[in-house]
Order: sequence, then structure tokens, then C-alpha cells
Amino acid sequence: MRMLYLAGPDVFLQNAIEIGARKRAICAKHGFEGLYPIDPDVEASADPEAIFRANCAHMQRADAGLFNLTPFRGPSADAGTLFELGFMFALGKPVYGYASRAGAYAARVRTHYGKLARSGGRLWDPSGHAVEDFGLHENLMIVRALAASERELVVVQERGAQALAAMRAFEKCVAALARRRTKRS
Amino acid sequence: MRMLYLAGPDVFLQNAIEIGARKRAICAKHGFEGLYPIDPDVEASADPEAIFRANCAHMQRADAGLFNLTPFRGPSADAGTLFELGFMFALGKPVYGYASRAGAYAARVRTHYGKLARSGGRLWDPSGHAVEDFGLHENLMIVRALAASERELVVVQERGAQALAAMRAFEKCVAALARRRTKRS
Repeated sequence: MRMLYLAGPDVFLQNAIEIGARKRAICAKHGFEGLYPIDPDVEASADPEAIFRANCAHMQRADAGLFNLTPFRGPSADAGTLFELGFMFALGKPVYGYASRAGAYAARVRTHYGKLARSGGRLWDPSGHAVEDFGLHENLMIVRALAASERELVVVQERGAQALAAMRAFEKCVAALARRRTKRS
Repeated sequence: MRMLYLAGPDVFLQNAIEIGARKRAICAKHGFEGLYPIDPDVEASADPEAIFRANCAHMQRADAGLFNLTPFRGPSADAGTLFELGFMFALGKPVYGYASRAGAYAARVRTHYGKLARSGGRLWDPSGHAVEDFGLHENLMIVRALAASERELVVVQERGAQALAAMRAFEKCVAALARRRTKRS
């Protein structure tokens, strides 16, 4: 395993390019090459189709994926990141997750949408929609896909404007991959 | 194309089983077999790993996927549905999207999080995170994946408690697939 695709909502930070450079440097320090997605918003003239194709090519090329699953605009991870997690998982590539926010999905739904009700053995949000109540960090499809790669989600709590990058959890995740590679070789 | 995987947040509705039966009946009426995901919350004793495996097996088995991309708990589609869209797209299966809510992603971000600012040729939400501004219904990865299957997102606006099922858009989407099949045969 050498090339890692670095998915996440980091691309929406104002300093997205700097964040990408730091993540690639952390990869290099541990003997990996990080493939950072193109920032969809860096160029106003950017063509969505070109960005899409470039990201798909990155994922095809990478040996594994590192997914920043820090919640983005709601209780769940970024939409594009979730799509990419499914994509790489279906290709049979190992997928690893990290985040800067601890806690179960159901707790975040409560934070965003208000008190949950328990009825008929299930948990419901104020809109009357069931809330997954397995104590998992995310929707079960996401968490079980990570588990299939033999890893739990790596969480290192961070706060502030840069928390979305989850840099500390990222570094921990990459270091763990490097240790595992050493053990196996 | 015969077997269709029916992904979506419908499983979180109180009448999820009934919704699934109606969607399968619509498929049958048009000569398709609908594979509905197991409801994660119907049984309190449900095992997330078993649900995950069953859904993955459904997706492997299906000839194509129909994805309910109606926004769920925020401006984007349901996390599990997005994962599954990436999964089936990576397997090279056609993916089709439908929703009961019209409008661009950026407009929904504004509705959920407040006024957007334009600066440096880009659009920013109140948290200082860039907002994709391509006029697309969802994150570009999702929209371009649908476009690769030669279809635009099918939207039929609905309101009320059952809008999350997007039944009218679903029926329109299945009917269009049936017409296309007839033309090609």
C-alpha cells in the first residue's frame, strides 16, 4: 500500500490548498503518497465534469482511501466524501475513516434537530423519522464498511475553525497504517 | 435490466414497510423487480453487520440502482444512500436519482444555515466553508455520477409527511426506464 486517496470536506476550507499540502507531507513522512482531490471551488471556471473525472481517476489509482468523516452541514459526513467511500469500498480497496468530532450519530441528530422520542423500541426525531440507534458514529453502512477494513474510526477531538480538517486524527490514522505496514513486512 | 436496487431514506419513515411494498409494486407494474433495503430499525434486535451484508448483496445482485436523493437531515441526501450510490457506480452499474424537492444545493444551504457571502469568485456559508456553486442539485460527485448513466435527476415536488418517499418522482423515474428499455429492444 503506497498511494492513499485523501477524501474529505477539507476542500471547502478557505485554506484548502495549504491543508492538502500538510496532509500530503504527513503521508510522505510515513512513506505514503497522498492523492488530494481537486478543490471544486478554487477556480471559478472549474468544470464539474473535469473535477469528477479527476477524482474518480485518483480513486482508481490509489491503493487505499482515507476519509475525513467529520460531520459537515448536519449530523453526517460530507456528501461527496460518502459517495467516494462507497466507490472505493466497492472496488475492494481498504477504506479508513477519521474525524475531529466524537460521539454517536443519534446524539448529533438530537443536537441538530431536538429531543428524540423512544416508541415501539425505536428512536424518532421530531420530524417523525427513525434514528439509527446502534451507538455508531455514523450510518451503519459507513461504519461497517470501515470495519470491513479491520479498522475503527480514528477520532481526535478538535475545536475551532480548522477542526473540519481533523488534522490530528489524520496524522494518527496515517501513523497507524505505517505501523501496520511495518509489522506485516 | 431487470433487478433494481431501491436506495433511500424511506427506510426511516414510520410506514417504511408499506412504502417499500408500494415501490416494489410500481417496479413490477413496469416489468422490473425492486430490491428494497432491509429496514435498519424495524427490529430492535437487528444486527448492523447483517443489514450491511444484506444491502451489499442486494447491490451486487441488482442490474441498476434507483436512489432517492431527497434531502435528509440537512441540505444533502441520506448518508447511507450516498455511500450506496458510490458503491453501485464503482461497480459500473447504471445509477438513477430522484427526489421530491427541487432546487440547487447552494439554495438549500442558505435555507438551512443562513445568508451566503460571495468573495474571491466563490460562495461561502456563515461558517466560512465554501459552497459548491455550479447550480447543481447536489455535490458534483453525485450529480456527475448520475449524468454518466445518461440521466438527469428526476424531481417531482411533494410536501407533507410522506414527501421523503418521493413516490411521484420514483414512479416517473421507473416509467422512464421502462420506456427506454422498450425503445432499445
